[in-house]
Amino acid sequence: MAQTQLDDSFHVFDTTLRDGAQREGINLTVGDKLAIARLLDEFGVGFIEGGWPGANPKDTEFFQRAQTELSLRHAQLTAFGATRRAGLRADEDPQVTALRDSGASVVTLVAKSDERHVELALRVSLTENLAMIADTVAHLRSMGQRVFVDCEHFFDGYRHSPDYAVQVVRTAAEAGADVVVLCDTNGGMLPDDVARIVAEVGARTGARLGMHAQDDTGCAVANSLAAIDAGATHVQCTANGYGERVGNANLFSVVPALQLKRGRQVLPEGCLAEMSRVSQAIAELVNIAPATHQPYVGISAFAHKAGLHASAIKVDPDLYQHTDPELVGNDMRMLVSDMAGRASLELKARELGLDLGSDRTVLGTVVDRVKELEQQGYSFEAADASLELLLRRELGESVCYFEPESWRVIAERNADGTTLSEATVKLRVKGERVIATGEGNGPVHALDQALRSALAGVFPQLALVELVDYKVRILEGSSGTDAVTRVLIDSTDGRREWTTVGVGENVIDASWIALEQAISYGLHQHGR
Amino acid sequence: MAQTQLDDSFHVFDTTLRDGAQREGINLTVGDKLAIARLLDEFGVGFIEGGWPGANPKDTEFFQRAQTELSLRHAQLTAFGATRRAGLRADEDPQVTALRDSGASVVTLVAKSDERHVELALRVSLTENLAMIADTVAHLRSMGQRVFVDCEHFFDGYRHSPDYAVQVVRTAAEAGADVVVLCDTNGGMLPDDVARIVAEVGARTGARLGMHAQDDTGCAVANSLAAIDAGATHVQCTANGYGERVGNANLFSVVPALQLKRGRQVLPEGCLAEMSRVSQAIAELVNIAPATHQPYVGISAFAHKAGLHASAIKVDPDLYQHTDPELVGNDMRMLVSDMAGRASLELKARELGLDLGSDRTVLGTVVDRVKELEQQGYSFEAADASLELLLRRELGESVCYFEPESWRVIAERNADGTTLSEATVKLRVKGERVIATGEGNGPVHALDQALRSALAGVFPQLALVELVDYKVRILEGSSGTDAVTRVLIDSTDGRREWTTVGVGENVIDASWIALEQAISYGLHQHGR
Repeated sequence: MAQTQLDDSFHVFDTTLRDGAQREGINLTVGDKLAIARLLDEFGVGFIEGGWPGANPKDTEFFQRAQTELSLRHAQLTAFGATRRAGLRADEDPQVTALRDSGASVVTLVAKSDERHVELALRVSLTENLAMIADTVAHLRSMGQRVFVDCEHFFDGYRHSPDYAVQVVRTAAEAGADVVVLCDTNGGMLPDDVARIVAEVGARTGARLGMHAQDDTGCAVANSLAAIDAGATHVQCTANGYGERVGNANLFSVVPALQLKRGRQVLPEGCLAEMSRVSQAIAELVNIAPATHQPYVGISAFAHKAGLHASAIKVDPDLYQHTDPELVGNDMRMLVSDMAGRASLELKARELGLDLGSDRTVLGTVVDRVKELEQQGYSFEAADASLELLLRRELGESVCYFEPESWRVIAERNADGTTLSEATVKLRVKGERVIATGEGNGPVHALDQALRSALAGVFPQLALVELVDYKVRILEGSSGTDAVTRVLIDSTDGRREWTTVGVGENVIDASWIALEQAISYGLHQHGR
Repeated sequence: MAQTQLDDSFHVFDTTLRDGAQREGINLTVGDKLAIARLLDEFGVGFIEGGWPGANPKDTEFFQRAQTELSLRHAQLTAFGATRRAGLRADEDPQVTALRDSGASVVTLVAKSDERHVELALRVSLTENLAMIADTVAHLRSMGQRVFVDCEHFFDGYRHSPDYAVQVVRTAAEAGADVVVLCDTNGGMLPDDVARIVAEVGARTGARLGMHAQDDTGCAVANSLAAIDAGATHVQCTANGYGERVGNANLFSVVPALQLKRGRQVLPEGCLAEMSRVSQAIAELVNIAPATHQPYVGISAFAHKAGLHASAIKVDPDLYQHTDPELVGNDMRMLVSDMAGRASLELKARELGLDLGSDRTVLGTVVDRVKELEQQGYSFEAADASLELLLRRELGESVCYFEPESWRVIAERNADGTTLSEATVKLRVKGERVIATGEGNGPVHALDQALRSALAGVFPQLALVELVDYKVRILEGSSGTDAVTRVLIDSTDGRREWTTVGVGENVIDASWIALEQAISYGLHQHGR
């Protein structure tokens, strides 16, 4: 039986929906937030900070809908908010009331802990700031909620005036906060100073401490680990490290470091293996391309390129991997490129279930063909389906289901503001010449419709195949719109996804090539 | 006077051109490598590892051309290679000869230091491996080259069998290697273990040590700093952290941590302020979009979004920044988004030199308009020029130079393989109706040509304006080619660049909008 909840001795606290959402380019709907919360729960985090109810209508709606639409198995939902306003009673402050009424069993209160911020930004006295913290914590505790306190700009504050910063921690803990979180809000810390300060604050206050690291020095993961080594038992992270400026400590790096490197179980049994899937699904939801080079979960994280390595990996993969990719739900992958040479391509073929075996001639021809296409701008590293079609073709297999003759696309915007995209394709399929026209929302969609219409009679199984994503890359970025264009198309048959690549003088040309291959690969998967 | 070369007591060693080039997606020409070497030299690194002469024809050519085409002001060029083959004299091994004849004054030799790699991958005896190291170092030293030794898989080797790993370090140092570099080749280390092992190896060997960190745990920067704190005086990094799998320690994070956080000058005077420019220029050369969220140099690294912060930043920016962005050649930037509210937009307007001042009505209208467009899929965070046009328009300024009526694009591939793209635009300019047709390599290029041709007579200054980059993003990635498309266009007048955004049902529609604005902004810059 999988353990559904760990004890309270260590907190994996996720703030993707609150702090992570501040990343440039992220705009989440309430539906997105609910879907992300479900994924984080599947990953097994202990706390999900959902946003700031009362400050933002979207977040208020999120907490309302969460009460009926979210059923969390591992995590507790947490509301974020500020301490009461100066000169107001905590129970009279509508912002505090919104936290109390949010339905969340835990509240994280942000508090100023740097003297200068209290005086210059908040513009209250140092004493009033302490009273605001104590009152708000005590009020929410008395209403039955658990309270954590985030000490904003703690490390800067501590370096400027350690006594006041420590007093803030002590005040929060004495008022009933379960955890006092030291925040490196500006992200400027390095691990040695974090370790020293966390240990000093722990010794001076006896409070239960947490760590919130931003990644402005590129050390957020190391800073989080340093704080934990120095005694923090609560760590705040975001999925894929999303967050303001450079981002936050990456949940998907901090957790595996603790579990795989430190041997400390911080997620329920079985959850770590969901990490790559959850990371990618969240990237899709926030509509940011998954970071291919992200530790542990990136598609490149266990990909091997250099010819030097590839030949040795055949001997023993574990000599070349710092951890088994399956433990985090990822896979080892061999890349094709002119540096890799034959050994890589051979392994790739094996991965695809093709036997190039000992036939050095075929292998040599394929290597040459790949190099030639890469010089034109093709990249097969992400386009497994195009590479597989190429390999099969070179092995003499027929993977050609139709012969394109020509196509034409017309796109126009009329004076009345309406737009039209229409494509005509001419091709030969099973000996017959077919002409078909399709309309679409755009030129590529129209081409896709025309191609499907031309092939539908002969290949009804094509109905299974759907395009799911479309990416355009302009190569040689210094010559603007007349540069070479590379298009990647992701397709699915509902069971698996595949990617094809096309390169051409223009976006439609390149799209056509990738489209042709996407369809051919789908037909190959589902017989003729 | 700027100091052109620091003393030898600390080495900033760049391996972008060798190890960085192994990053998935990078394929460098010799010309690219020469250009990158020049940029790294401007940044002031001490050593530039150029590649493996003799192993790779491209690298051989690079070292040849470097002798006449590179004139480095700060850096020394370094050749990478392996120790002699088993059973061969060092001076008879053609690979060693190629290093000797490379023209590089420094050679970095890779050596195995993990018993298991010696026996399973290299397949020689432990003693022969030591002899290979000693012989090769001694030979190259005797020929007048300086030698560094990279101990591959050192940390894994040390944990498996510390005595052998230490013996490798000692052998290299005794044979004359100036620096012995401990490599975390699999990238699985965390900072505490790095610090401990570097200190132990230093104590046991007395050798001058270096650090080479890979980023598989997300700790490469912290691991490099930990090694330096433990006594290493040589650090190997790559520009933007490029490298195999997840990448290498990021040069542009390690160096500012040392200079700005540790107060240790490791670059010649004045070089650090070139960092953002050099980072971006190298990203362009390797043709990977600059990492917007990269520490210090990313366009988001000093960008502020939350409304909470924006109002306080007006008080004192230094309370919200971990370092002054100008020190690394970057800038503070305010983002526009629905989270930011009025304070952000007000600051943004001030940044653009527009006075929204105390007029709360105009500000409110602009905020609403921005939110409305963002819901359609617009994003103004990267598109400063579109935002400026919007702000000016809301302030009642006329930034409209022509009125588009309609357009039509035809793109076709004929049976003979030739392609054609042709666009016709109809518009009104200064009261006259103009119809113009343009041809291009692709549909957007053709539209650009048609639009220019329609406007050229009235606005000859348009000749100054050129499109330099074109990016396409499909929003709502789950519905394939019929999703909404966002296009960003970068333009230049030779002095500065600007970005415009267009959103539409399809790529041509969106491109047209971004194009229209790119041209309007250019006309605005250069009068009517």
